Amino acid sequence: MSLNPKRTVAELKELRALTGNADGAQRVAFTPIWVAARDFLKSKLEGLPVETSQDEAGNLWVTLRGDSSRELWIGGHLDSVPNGGWLDGCLNVLAGLEVLRRISVEFNGKPPLTVRLVDWADEEGARFGRSLFGSSAVSGFFDPEDLKNRMDKEGLRLEDVVKAHGIDLAKALEAGKAKAKAAAYLELHIEQGPVLEGLGLPLGVVLGTKGVERHGITFFGQEAHSGSTPMAVRRDALGAAAKLSLEIRDIAKQHSDAVCTVGSVKTFPGIVTAVVGRCEMTLDQRDLDAKVLAGMYASAVKASERFALEEGCTVQWNKIWSIEPIPFHNKLIELCNQAILETCGVSHQLPSGPLHDAAEVARVGIPTVMMFVQSLRGISHNKIEDTLEEHLELSIIAFDKLAGKTLAWLQNT
Amino acid sequence: MSLNPKRTVAELKELRALTGNADGAQRVAFTPIWVAARDFLKSKLEGLPVETSQDEAGNLWVTLRGDSSRELWIGGHLDSVPNGGWLDGCLNVLAGLEVLRRISVEFNGKPPLTVRLVDWADEEGARFGRSLFGSSAVSGFFDPEDLKNRMDKEGLRLEDVVKAHGIDLAKALEAGKAKAKAAAYLELHIEQGPVLEGLGLPLGVVLGTKGVERHGITFFGQEAHSGSTPMAVRRDALGAAAKLSLEIRDIAKQHSDAVCTVGSVKTFPGIVTAVVGRCEMTLDQRDLDAKVLAGMYASAVKASERFALEEGCTVQWNKIWSIEPIPFHNKLIELCNQAILETCGVSHQLPSGPLHDAAEVARVGIPTVMMFVQSLRGISHNKIEDTLEEHLELSIIAFDKLAGKTLAWLQNT
Repeated sequence: MSLNPKRTVAELKELRALTGNADGAQRVAFTPIWVAARDFLKSKLEGLPVETSQDEAGNLWVTLRGDSSRELWIGGHLDSVPNGGWLDGCLNVLAGLEVLRRISVEFNGKPPLTVRLVDWADEEGARFGRSLFGSSAVSGFFDPEDLKNRMDKEGLRLEDVVKAHGIDLAKALEAGKAKAKAAAYLELHIEQGPVLEGLGLPLGVVLGTKGVERHGITFFGQEAHSGSTPMAVRRDALGAAAKLSLEIRDIAKQHSDAVCTVGSVKTFPGIVTAVVGRCEMTLDQRDLDAKVLAGMYASAVKASERFALEEGCTVQWNKIWSIEPIPFHNKLIELCNQAILETCGVSHQLPSGPLHDAAEVARVGIPTVMMFVQSLRGISHNKIEDTLEEHLELSIIAFDKLAGKTLAWLQNT
Repeated sequence: MSLNPKRTVAELKELRALTGNADGAQRVAFTPIWVAARDFLKSKLEGLPVETSQDEAGNLWVTLRGDSSRELWIGGHLDSVPNGGWLDGCLNVLAGLEVLRRISVEFNGKPPLTVRLVDWADEEGARFGRSLFGSSAVSGFFDPEDLKNRMDKEGLRLEDVVKAHGIDLAKALEAGKAKAKAAAYLELHIEQGPVLEGLGLPLGVVLGTKGVERHGITFFGQEAHSGSTPMAVRRDALGAAAKLSLEIRDIAKQHSDAVCTVGSVKTFPGIVTAVVGRCEMTLDQRDLDAKVLAGMYASAVKASERFALEEGCTVQWNKIWSIEPIPFHNKLIELCNQAILETCGVSHQLPSGPLHDAAEVARVGIPTVMMFVQSLRGISHNKIEDTLEEHLELSIIAFDKLAGKTLAWLQNT
């Protein structure tokens, strides 16, 4: 057995030194530091019997050919947000590299199935505001026309920027042809939330990515003088918004893993001497169960109408964005659970609130599962993002077990 | 009896045409249009046996000398906010002018007491953010050092701007010497609120100006990812702020005339995908009873601490401003009530939420009362500010009766 989790931790630190600074990781996609991160990965492939190629969407594929052309995919993303954490995305890639090494040794360079490590391009979308760039090109949920004129802060167009990295945006969807041979997809990721830490557990099985309903809500009342307007005659838009801000929490708490968040409230005219005439707020609702999500959305709409009526206001909803829940594959969930139990004796199943490349792969029917490793303080996208080294090592061991179990399962199906 | 309320309404319209435009009144203090409004007033004084002078704080005094040097003051303000209403402030001045005319005729130019009409300088504070400029110089609650470097939007300093209008800021407090002879102060004003309209009454007696507690409140929680952070572990600063926004309304409703307002809420980071880590809000509390006001403030502080605890947050209060309640004079309240009853058969007593120059006069012990006339829709500081002409006429009649009753009362004291 050649798996060496400590080597992966050392490589993560090496990558951090190479691509980070005092403010955190700086591996923003389509920048020189991101290219440096990919060069680092390529340098680690020397001596492995693999082929490396970049597809039409900029995804980097490392392929260990097997007896069968059916493929087991292991994926992650080297890109980070600006001032990001040292693990988000690259743990998956470097753990995948270690798994690839182990498989290569175990099968003398020729596993029963083809195994491919994929470094997805621009998972974070930090520069152009479009996350899951490379994986959505593969899934096909990708519109070059919608993307090409997106600008970064310097006013550079997405189409021009990606071209400098060998991507012809108009042909990016051709990366989707890879799907045909994919038999399963595995992804290890830091949790980015506080659940495993709260339970004192190193590892968890991810059941899928939650669906999201994201809306802007505006209550219209009547601006009025705070001194001369009696309480009884006010039409207080903030009153309605405050009630809804509290109600959506009760709506979420009726379902075990659901979350509802009001992230922004804006008051107009927003001065100390005026009753709020207009209040704008955002709502973000997530659950793994589409029915639960639809029910929570309907409940929030209904509640907003009730509160508007109570406060003499009107209410308007504007959809910002939504995506359906994407459940992972039952058999792979079972295998992931076994791998974790064998590694550390106790496992936990949880949905993922944040989206991941795995969602793009799963939504087109490729059997998929993710494994989470505990995040300290539940914080990511920040330089203080961290995970205990012993947990990182456990995650690499368990993830490798999952890869082994998946290969065995695929051979028998 | 020479009182001619229709003349006052006509003069109000004349002033509107002279100093307003399609956006409303533009008589902002220390601007050419404000000077034009004062010139208009002066032009109306021709033929009246009065002396006109400007004091050290820029207040314009029109004096009808009487047998006694004791003075009855009648006051208002010609200045308006930008895009203001046609009545706010100048109704008082032009109604006072009409009363002065009637008194002059009745007493053949020599009433028993000296009667002075005062046009206070910069009641609104629209340009430099300091309201009650002229009246507070007279009361003495005025700090030239604090004021002199205030800037308007164009970066002009208050001290320089008022100098161009004959005011040496360093000497403005000398205007306070006028207080020595003042025996009473009367002010008519539009209500600027919906109370009289709601009761279907034209006129009301003002019991005093409410005290104000004005504070900024910040809840500190923990910014967290809206997708990955379970409801149960959140430290939601908005949750605490929403609870307090609703609670302060219940606190106000325990007292008949009290008001409590959250006018501004700001969320940080304020994005759709993050639990609110910090929430800033403002609170404005007002009541005529100092004990009630203090109790409401204490209740709000206590509630904020309870909600902070419930939400795992901390809370910080920062005082913005406060002023004690300023009750008006009991005898003058009685006389005002009689004047209204004799004019329209029914009266109502109410506190004023907004501050007025009358508060500055009353706080230094000069017997003071105000009369309110109904505002349509309770709206002021806006071009749609309005009052029925028949109500304006009633207000001038009743205010004149009040002046007559006050003179008679002062003669006997």
